[in-house]
Amino acid sequence: MNETYVHGHHSREHERLHDQAGTLVDLLHCDTSYPRRSKVLEVGCGVGAQTVTLAERSPDAQFTSIDVSEASLSEARQAVKRAGLTNVEFRQANVFDLPFEPGSFDHVFVCFVLEHLAQPLEALAILRNQLKPGGTITVIEGDHGSAYFHPNSPDARAAIDCLVQLQSEAGGNALIGREIHPLLVKAGFDGVRVSPRVVYVDSTRPEMVDGFTRKTFNAMIEGIREPAIARGLIDAEAFDAGVRDLHRTTAPDGVFNYTFFKGVARKRDAGAG
Amino acid sequence: MNETYVHGHHSREHERLHDQAGTLVDLLHCDTSYPRRSKVLEVGCGVGAQTVTLAERSPDAQFTSIDVSEASLSEARQAVKRAGLTNVEFRQANVFDLPFEPGSFDHVFVCFVLEHLAQPLEALAILRNQLKPGGTITVIEGDHGSAYFHPNSPDARAAIDCLVQLQSEAGGNALIGREIHPLLVKAGFDGVRVSPRVVYVDSTRPEMVDGFTRKTFNAMIEGIREPAIARGLIDAEAFDAGVRDLHRTTAPDGVFNYTFFKGVARKRDAGAG
Repeated sequence: MNETYVHGHHSREHERLHDQAGTLVDLLHCDTSYPRRSKVLEVGCGVGAQTVTLAERSPDAQFTSIDVSEASLSEARQAVKRAGLTNVEFRQANVFDLPFEPGSFDHVFVCFVLEHLAQPLEALAILRNQLKPGGTITVIEGDHGSAYFHPNSPDARAAIDCLVQLQSEAGGNALIGREIHPLLVKAGFDGVRVSPRVVYVDSTRPEMVDGFTRKTFNAMIEGIREPAIARGLIDAEAFDAGVRDLHRTTAPDGVFNYTFFKGVARKRDAGAG
Repeated sequence: MNETYVHGHHSREHERLHDQAGTLVDLLHCDTSYPRRSKVLEVGCGVGAQTVTLAERSPDAQFTSIDVSEASLSEARQAVKRAGLTNVEFRQANVFDLPFEPGSFDHVFVCFVLEHLAQPLEALAILRNQLKPGGTITVIEGDHGSAYFHPNSPDARAAIDCLVQLQSEAGGNALIGREIHPLLVKAGFDGVRVSPRVVYVDSTRPEMVDGFTRKTFNAMIEGIREPAIARGLIDAEAFDAGVRDLHRTTAPDGVFNYTFFKGVARKRDAGAG
């Protein structure tokens, strides 16, 4: 995929991700908090959008947040510092080549990362190995196939499908949200529980019309205009019509739906058979 | 639309609707109950699948349930009698030609009806006129564009799209769920609040795999095989491949998502300006 797209590694994207975390924080994170002194591995922290929320919500847990990009980590460090948090340690690392001993962590947290990986199942198996017996993993992913809206628009759907296609060509999967349950099961986790987190936006929620539909989802689609056209997935006119129709859903009579999926699972206790 | 399809007027459909109400009842109706002595109009009660739930949940309210079909009403009467309920009166009537005085009801309830109407907005305006000032309307509808699943399948999507197309040709709208908010606003209601009711089904919920995915949604799609092929919307092979893929989502590693929308709104008090 075009480098301008990969989440968290481009300055306009950074803003989008922070906007997104700001408006979605309760929906996605309301039920995540970690006990005192527990060691939590956050995988793919990017610019720290989720890191700040996590660390604030679990002030007595100790976070180790990793990302492949030093540039992103540098921003994440600043974000955590600005928030006055001292319970996060950052480290440059790749999930497929982790610098930790097996069984180093009580909990693992993965948010908006698996969608970019060609081998999400292998990543989950590696992360399971990082957990102590009885430890938990939390996975949050979106699913662009969950987006639908009023007025309905085949053009808007075609523009969204360009992003799905680009992400697929880059080895990722923009429809991974619906697969979290089977992925966690196949990776060997126990007690897998997945719940949908639905963003339903109509004009009674103006802050979500602006913060989610306009500045998060539509901005993300607008961001792939160049690579989508360059790859010949769509022509400029059709793409622009799609984006126009996506923005039409932010009118007073418009409606926009999107679903994130959150999965929580456990590494079986050694003694539990 | 082929007569075998129209909800609630065919014996296999009846079973499906009862199954559906049985497994979805909490999701759809948990927050609906009417006060003592309030007069409630249920529009399009069909064979009484929702009627029994409504009347049981509000034993001290008085329901008037209407449907265009005498055959359906006859089944609904039996269902209510079997449930030992005495707070429901049935009447054959068409929403566009109601036999009641304006302002006759404290509340109106409409479930799985607007999707079949060519003029849902006009129907809502008529129902608003049936309410006393300060009365409420509750609207529940599905949205077939909200269905997505794992494994993903263009064939399954094509089979679903046949139902959307058939319903559209019959003057209905199988994607109406997402439009409830703008429809209620345009019909003149106040305080419109819509919430999505998500059916997320994976193998941790075997009763929903069977009761919803298999016996409700997939059965509904299977039910349009003949008219879809007869109309030339799809060929038999493609349709059957779609149905097969829909059933594939009920395997242990499958996932199925569907969203209903529930809207509640108020007729403004006469004195409230």
